[in-house]
Amino acid sequence: MSFDALDQIRIVLVHTSHPGNIGATARAMKNMGLRQLVLVAPKRFPDEEAVWRSANALDILDQAKVVDNLDEAIADCGLVVGTSARERRIPWPLLDPRQCAEKMLTDSPRGPVAVLFGREDRGLTNEELQRCHVHVHIPTNPDYSSLNLAAAVQVICYELRMACLQEGVTVDETEGWDVPLAPADDVERFYEHLQEVLVGLDFMDPDNPKQVITRLRRLFNRVRLDQMEVNILRGILSTVQRRSV
Amino acid sequence: MSFDALDQIRIVLVHTSHPGNIGATARAMKNMGLRQLVLVAPKRFPDEEAVWRSANALDILDQAKVVDNLDEAIADCGLVVGTSARERRIPWPLLDPRQCAEKMLTDSPRGPVAVLFGREDRGLTNEELQRCHVHVHIPTNPDYSSLNLAAAVQVICYELRMACLQEGVTVDETEGWDVPLAPADDVERFYEHLQEVLVGLDFMDPDNPKQVITRLRRLFNRVRLDQMEVNILRGILSTVQRRSV
Repeated sequence: MSFDALDQIRIVLVHTSHPGNIGATARAMKNMGLRQLVLVAPKRFPDEEAVWRSANALDILDQAKVVDNLDEAIADCGLVVGTSARERRIPWPLLDPRQCAEKMLTDSPRGPVAVLFGREDRGLTNEELQRCHVHVHIPTNPDYSSLNLAAAVQVICYELRMACLQEGVTVDETEGWDVPLAPADDVERFYEHLQEVLVGLDFMDPDNPKQVITRLRRLFNRVRLDQMEVNILRGILSTVQRRSV
Repeated sequence: MSFDALDQIRIVLVHTSHPGNIGATARAMKNMGLRQLVLVAPKRFPDEEAVWRSANALDILDQAKVVDNLDEAIADCGLVVGTSARERRIPWPLLDPRQCAEKMLTDSPRGPVAVLFGREDRGLTNEELQRCHVHVHIPTNPDYSSLNLAAAVQVICYELRMACLQEGVTVDETEGWDVPLAPADDVERFYEHLQEVLVGLDFMDPDNPKQVITRLRRLFNRVRLDQMEVNILRGILSTVQRRSV
């Protein structure tokens, strides 16, 4: 696997508080050969402390894209990975950093890949985690699991570089697929449409309206929907709307 | 391999300049379950910045042993590993972090193991490196290889923890799933129901009636549906049938 694959991998920091962590992230990325940094609504950026902690990885900081919300950060991505420290109520496909790096590289020829890192104090929200196809958990001491943000980025970027160095990365089971993958924002619009239809049908559990949609998101995020599949599903939803009373 | 083996592994920081790096090292160690920190002639320690960057890994800092020279740090060690950023004039046995972590754990029952990290600006001296049995090199971008000290510690400690976890266990990404998988015949009945609904809605392409259902099968077969998911999907189909005209 060529190191060029790393250019397809986007590190997305969501609502970072400390600019020092942004700088240290840039340094960790550059050390490992990654370049694409996206910052979702950082508290302080640009900032002197980011520059100082980046230790001359200024090109990464200069090229970093700052966006207002997560949608903008991942709209064109075929694979979205979320870093997760905690056990969640509804389990999600969960990989360790090594498995995850391999998956990201295997998928990278098919489009941009995003890996999301949450806030320093409480990580990604459940809603943000539900936007992801898979979660990655860095194994930590259960008695002391709060990893520094840049340290987490370091581990993931290190595994990506190691995976590039390994011989014989396993072949993607959907390689040679007949239809391009659906971009994340098309999939998101499908979810919105699905929810609209289910509400229209009074299908949602009134006691727990979000439970059904969460489970359906988890289901469809386990598949990487291709464009034709999204079109078919949207077509079914429109037909149901037209034909229902 | 038990995590107790990690207690035999000693992180040795040689002539560290910045106390922040000592704090971040303590945090990285504790996150990964290591406890033995030895500081060879640190420039500033104890120090407020070390405390701040340690993020409550204070026990590691409190128990850290400060010594005057490298000999004291490694006297009782059976295996000494040196981290090395550069190619050396005299080749030395060189491992990558993964191989090295395995070697450290394999050796740990035979006595303490030390892994040495050098100065922020120029690493370990040739003399210090020659005290080591093996060298470990963290693969970095050749154009930008100066890894932050604590980031290097993070990578090595992470590989040690991963090596403890490996022991030939392949991880099923849906292990610990909250709902049992749906049996194949339930899934088959879902497909039949889906087809019935789509025919009822006149959704099928008249020129190619099987195309849509084939694509939907391919979609849902890529997920391994669990029982609750099948129930939800069947519930939606029944609701659509009841409500459509």
